[in-house]
Amino acid sequence: MKHLLVVAHGSRRAASNDEVRTLCQQLKQLDNPFVEISCAFLELAEPSIPEGLQALIANGATEIVVMPYFLSAGRHVTADIPAEIEPVKQQSPQVKISIAPYLGAAEQIGEILMEQALQAIL
Amino acid sequence: MKHLLVVAHGSRRAASNDEVRTLCQQLKQLDNPFVEISCAFLELAEPSIPEGLQALIANGATEIVVMPYFLSAGRHVTADIPAEIEPVKQQSPQVKISIAPYLGAAEQIGEILMEQALQAIL
Repeated sequence: MKHLLVVAHGSRRAASNDEVRTLCQQLKQLDNPFVEISCAFLELAEPSIPEGLQALIANGATEIVVMPYFLSAGRHVTADIPAEIEPVKQQSPQVKISIAPYLGAAEQIGEILMEQALQAIL
Repeated sequence: MKHLLVVAHGSRRAASNDEVRTLCQQLKQLDNPFVEISCAFLELAEPSIPEGLQALIANGATEIVVMPYFLSAGRHVTADIPAEIEPVKQQSPQVKISIAPYLGAAEQIGEILMEQALQAIL
């Protein structure tokens, strides 16, 4: 029972948070091994990371991958997200919770960025 | 004389800013129409966006594409980056400055995100 929790920063701007929610819905269309895919926010939006994790656990998750939807390995990725996860790990030690590499670590980011840049001159 | 300026948020953490600088170096390895590719930061790091633009203009740029290295269309993308660019446009009206779609708007983001998530369970 693998579940995926996409974690974004969260914004005061509702439309930005909705972009993340829409992305999570789109992920479900891709071939993937996850029983459920949902999102959570580090701050400024709901659900929080602990709330998101607890909802998946209540839904039967035995393994959860937390995917940081961040571009750089700043404090949020290296410290804040692990700190939000830790109490849930202690409360539910039977659930395996792992953190995937953050989005910006993906090798393909450069190519996508170049494609987006070319759209401005075509 | 097309130039590309990748604009990131900027971080107090030097390593995060260096990630962006490294990415810009990697972009130069890709097939692309840009004479020069450099980066600038909205805040917390240097060069600023006006400094980055002015350096490209001093270098002979007649057309500059600003590429927002951001995941969501928040205030930074919709208001702050255009506001930083506007005075440079007025100072150098002979230079065409356009803003590319922000990174998070790319269709392939979902697929990349899923690939990163799978790395946590493989």
